[in-house]
Amino acid sequence: LSSFVGGPTGKWKVLSIDAVRGAVLPVVERIDIFNPPFPEFKGHSWVLNGVISNARYVEKAEKIQLLARQAPLNRQEATRAALIPIKKSPAWWNMSQDERRAIFEDQSHHTAEGLKYLPAIARQLFHCRDLGESFDFLTWFEYSPQHSAEFEHLVQFLRNSEEWRWVDREVDIRLELGEPNFSKPEVP
Amino acid sequence: LSSFVGGPTGKWKVLSIDAVRGAVLPVVERIDIFNPPFPEFKGHSWVLNGVISNARYVEKAEKIQLLARQAPLNRQEATRAALIPIKKSPAWWNMSQDERRAIFEDQSHHTAEGLKYLPAIARQLFHCRDLGESFDFLTWFEYSPQHSAEFEHLVQFLRNSEEWRWVDREVDIRLELGEPNFSKPEVP
Repeated sequence: LSSFVGGPTGKWKVLSIDAVRGAVLPVVERIDIFNPPFPEFKGHSWVLNGVISNARYVEKAEKIQLLARQAPLNRQEATRAALIPIKKSPAWWNMSQDERRAIFEDQSHHTAEGLKYLPAIARQLFHCRDLGESFDFLTWFEYSPQHSAEFEHLVQFLRNSEEWRWVDREVDIRLELGEPNFSKPEVP
Repeated sequence: LSSFVGGPTGKWKVLSIDAVRGAVLPVVERIDIFNPPFPEFKGHSWVLNGVISNARYVEKAEKIQLLARQAPLNRQEATRAALIPIKKSPAWWNMSQDERRAIFEDQSHHTAEGLKYLPAIARQLFHCRDLGESFDFLTWFEYSPQHSAEFEHLVQFLRNSEEWRWVDREVDIRLELGEPNFSKPEVP
């Protein structure tokens, strides 16, 4: 379980919070990410919880490519991030697995397109639908400032896809590592 | 979210609790099922939580058959039930979607076999892996006493399947509607 806590403190400084579809989240200055055991959050505005779970659509051949090309989180140079919580429609969740997979990949090329941006754009998906949260997923991306334009291409591609027509709510939060709370280890 | 509460009270009387694989659960007299808003549970032995979520493997053609044949829960004549919590192995969850689907249906015929027992055996799956629970699923079955033998055939079939080799823990709890707390409405 990971908790994304929006409030006055945290190592990620908020650059923008925009509603792409549906209601936006309250503006906060910073976001911090916590894992259990949790401290007692105080003075925060909101908390989004999610869990890293098994992949729901990726097939074996795609998984091999992803594993070969993906980058880890917390890279020294990845000082930009995006937290994009998404909620899909009841109609999406009511579809069978083969119908959802067909939209996700055969029509929308979700994984195939994401692969093109590896290893520049590191990505981690957190699931939260089964947790009864307001969103179904929290998507988290980390990249260096020099890859900002590529990241814009990626999110625009996904928002123009067939899959995105099943999105009921999406908030786009852009972040940069905040100097005052900069806590990454120095490269030796 | 549904909570299965094992303890001294509840409308379902426990007939047996057996470990099929891995650790058993503590013996209790009764099980009750609660949905939010939850009362304050007292004097209970254990609580298993799960959520009804989207189907993970069922394809459209199978779904059509399931919808046409399945029975609802809470039928007057369905006075027997089974609560079978299951935890699958890390190796299962590490497989890609197509690998899991191939084992689930192509090799194990999970849905095709279950269909044969409809509408006699009503079934509801509760997911709990993303909730951080001890089990990954809570499987719940309801049937009339006259279909007890068929239910045994179904569980034996599933335990002899390829899919079952990926089960790390399974507890089998058999229940009958308990007279003292019998709260179903009378047929008018």
